Amino acid sequence: MSFIIIAPPVPTQKWKEELELIAPEIPLVIGTDTDNPDDIICAMVWKQKPGVLNRFKNLKLIFSMGAGVDHVLLDDSIPEHIPICRVVDPQMAFSMSNFVLMAVLNHHRSLYNYRKAQEKKHWAQFEFEERNLKIGVLGTGFLGMNVAKKLHALGFQVMGYSTSNKETPFPSYTGVEMDTFLSQINVLICLVPYTPKTEALLNYDLFKKLTQPTYLINVSRGSVQVERDILKALDEGILNGAFLDVFEQEPLSAESPLWQYSSVQITPHIASLTYPKESVRQVLECLNLVKKGLPLPNKVDRKKMY
Amino acid sequence: MSFIIIAPPVPTQKWKEELELIAPEIPLVIGTDTDNPDDIICAMVWKQKPGVLNRFKNLKLIFSMGAGVDHVLLDDSIPEHIPICRVVDPQMAFSMSNFVLMAVLNHHRSLYNYRKAQEKKHWAQFEFEERNLKIGVLGTGFLGMNVAKKLHALGFQVMGYSTSNKETPFPSYTGVEMDTFLSQINVLICLVPYTPKTEALLNYDLFKKLTQPTYLINVSRGSVQVERDILKALDEGILNGAFLDVFEQEPLSAESPLWQYSSVQITPHIASLTYPKESVRQVLECLNLVKKGLPLPNKVDRKKMY
Repeated sequence: MSFIIIAPPVPTQKWKEELELIAPEIPLVIGTDTDNPDDIICAMVWKQKPGVLNRFKNLKLIFSMGAGVDHVLLDDSIPEHIPICRVVDPQMAFSMSNFVLMAVLNHHRSLYNYRKAQEKKHWAQFEFEERNLKIGVLGTGFLGMNVAKKLHALGFQVMGYSTSNKETPFPSYTGVEMDTFLSQINVLICLVPYTPKTEALLNYDLFKKLTQPTYLINVSRGSVQVERDILKALDEGILNGAFLDVFEQEPLSAESPLWQYSSVQITPHIASLTYPKESVRQVLECLNLVKKGLPLPNKVDRKKMY
Repeated sequence: MSFIIIAPPVPTQKWKEELELIAPEIPLVIGTDTDNPDDIICAMVWKQKPGVLNRFKNLKLIFSMGAGVDHVLLDDSIPEHIPICRVVDPQMAFSMSNFVLMAVLNHHRSLYNYRKAQEKKHWAQFEFEERNLKIGVLGTGFLGMNVAKKLHALGFQVMGYSTSNKETPFPSYTGVEMDTFLSQINVLICLVPYTPKTEALLNYDLFKKLTQPTYLINVSRGSVQVERDILKALDEGILNGAFLDVFEQEPLSAESPLWQYSSVQITPHIASLTYPKESVRQVLECLNLVKKGLPLPNKVDRKKMY
């Protein structure tokens, strides 16, 4: 039995190192090239090309190397019987929550305005107040809930929206209550998975339903946002700024006007980093359960796409 | 009986509004000019000129309009028998902690590097890792403890130092253990009060005792830092950056080289904002206790200076 990693160089190298440390006895193939495709029982993938997994007739487990699985499911040739799992890692939640907190706090305390003042050597005392934030977390799954709970624990006013009912220490909305949720917030944190239902969700019509102006933070998937509409909403003052970590096309084209908006912060899809150590541990655990025919934690529902 | 506010215009206006709302029956004097100095029983002050309070022979309470009281105690003509109190406000802790968290998280996630990349329209994916922070809070009083506990709750490695022993869920140091504390941290958050003992505490000798390099966050008092030494430590790589909210001279002179250091963030002494509503409530409560001869909460120890 062998494992295979099909992913870009940066995660591949780190996962390889961890696997060699934890399970040195398991032969590991990097990339799709192998003379013994029938030996592969477990594939760790990130944006694999559709169809490449079909060579491995004895594949028992596919593991997404990130929290999102939309990239795996783009490949509709994967047989239904092979379980796809994703990493659900407290360290990843630490990473994501810190990133979102940073984005929220910089907005809360007008850091970008103070930056501009610093560039002019201007002592801008008493020029900016703390903003009174009403924070909405759209998508309170594993990562979104962690973000929402941390913001709530820090004393911020928080609301959540999820497709399923959630027990939360703050108001939570679900189903048809989306408009009610949107109307009450002035910071929108998007942490939904990418599915056909969430594609282009962050569009002009949605922005108009928010308290005006609202600050947008998207750390989910670029396909969830309509960048043309974000620009329009910024120009019209419907949005007063945005922190975007994901984009319709990645890397973001140098042609995009987003780069130059002073109220827009851009990071290159790094909000949540995966920690291979814990992920690799979960791969081995999952494979063990597969062999025993036991239920898998964090198995992806292919219909829901998360 | 009357109250008096002696402070710059910005806090004065807000405190005046709150006082008129909560205690409209109490005559209020703004500034030092009054025909009836003997009516004044309570003075709320921020950086009053030494000696100005001596006119008020019936003064029963002096209240500092901020968390620090060094500005009040500069005036050594204030009779010993008049109690000086300071505001201890959960809202102020909310404000201070958010500010410090912001400074820590921006450093943790290399936000300033991503800002520079954005200016060049450069997609800097995988170029910066999350920094492994060992955070030291120097001065775990009311505000410092709040900061330290929040960072600890978020999952960061935190250490505290205080002149007194503290029960904390993270390692705490006191007394002669300062060097041990300093040697273990790579983020130094300074929240000590300004006293003769803390004057120029943040100097080159202290920086050399830190893990190299360390990130410096000073949100206490400018007199606690030696800016010449901060510049030297930055130039030598002993410090890898600083977030400074306070300065030896405020406003910071346009001549200061600090403005232009790309690894230095400057804010104009706004880390912790006071919320007059709660402060004014505490003034009235204190005065009530003074009248009854009862012990005062948050009374300043003039020797300790906090």
